[in-house]
Amino acid sequence: MKVIADISVVPIGVGVALSKYVAACEKVLEDAGLEIRLHAYGTNIEGEWDDVFAAIKRCHEVVHEMGAPRVSTVIKVGTRTDRPQTMDDKVRSVESKVSK
Amino acid sequence: MKVIADISVVPIGVGVALSKYVAACEKVLEDAGLEIRLHAYGTNIEGEWDDVFAAIKRCHEVVHEMGAPRVSTVIKVGTRTDRPQTMDDKVRSVESKVSK
Amino acid sequence: MKVIADISVVPIGVGVALSKYVAACEKVLEDAGLEIRLHAYGTNIEGEWDDVFAAIKRCHEVVHEMGAPRVSTVIKVGTRTDRPQTMDDKVRSVESKVSK
Amino acid sequence: MKVIADISVVPIGVGVALSKYVAACEKVLEDAGLEIRLHAYGTNIEGEWDDVFAAIKRCHEVVHEMGAPRVSTVIKVGTRTDRPQTMDDKVRSVESKVSK
Repeated sequence: MKVIADISVVPIGVGVALSKYVAACEKVLEDAGLEIRLHAYGTNIEGEWDDVFAAIKRCHEVVHEMGAPRVSTVIKVGTRTDRPQTMDDKVRSVESKVSK
Repeated sequence: MKVIADISVVPIGVGVALSKYVAACEKVLEDAGLEIRLHAYGTNIEGEWDDVFAAIKRCHEVVHEMGAPRVSTVIKVGTRTDRPQTMDDKVRSVESKVSK
Repeated sequence: MKVIADISVVPIGVGVALSKYVAACEKVLEDAGLEIRLHAYGTNIEGEWDDVFAAIKRCHEVVHEMGAPRVSTVIKVGTRTDRPQTMDDKVRSVESKVSK
Repeated sequence: MKVIADISVVPIGVGVALSKYVAACEKVLEDAGLEIRLHAYGTNIEGEWDDVFAAIKRCHEVVHEMGAPRVSTVIKVGTRTDRPQTMDDKVRSVESKVSK
């Protein structure tokens, strides 16, 4: 089952500067061979369900290992059975209609 | 790794009445032996990471099998390494401070 | 426009114990006269759009005043024009189908 | 109060093709003079709290006017009092740490 997902990982109890934890999580996702796009409030991910969620679990483990006692993550995950769709397809589909 | 999670599952392309799909997903979570609490915008879940996410994957499969061509789910997932905490602990901790 | 919403407020940079901030936010919502239900990963809210979002803004202000330098909140908000629906309606609708 | 937000709007009861509704919402955000960035699972928004939330309310109204009987939106909103930060700052801060 193919998914398009979006995650935003919030380490809690490590102060106010969170980007090094987010960067560590980006590396986990990249090392897992997933297609990703960083944005200003999270990261888009494309891949197989099991690969995507194994990588998100690894993110939690890595952020805890870096010293965060709590991690709270928001995940959006979409699946569809009617037709294949990539992240780029989704963005292009909206952009083509905005520009009209 | 123990988690407290929250999911809201939105089937897309099956009209406006979604409760039968949400109910099917509740049954999946219950059958997986997970501790759950239904609320007005989703379901709280407590369990081991792998069990929780296997059940969420099964929810997507079941909702697709019921005829939904697209499913979009929002998952919040929290883990902590400093101390154990249940869903009831979280609610009580806030309630004790509200009532003061 | 009537809404059913759900919020989870995460203060960042104030350590690992967040319940006093969440409790302060509950009080803001109650003082605004909104119908609310606390759960283990947030709070359900029912009310008019403008009242609900004014109260959420006030939550951010109060949590900052309590000393949190950053606040990140997840809001889910649902509106419908086909028929009125309360939080209790939503829960009952799912529960009646689970028990079958 | 300046915010960085992220929204994903899901019209319910209008079938499986949602991009025209998302595009209409993009236009609402642009017409409101907000800084926005479309991605594959939503849209980042930067602006003043009141302007951002007035535009999100207008999105719901417009999507209902287009025929959707239900709309469910996920909003993430972050505020900070320690220092100003733009969407581009957030992305650059992570990217600089990933590339190390």
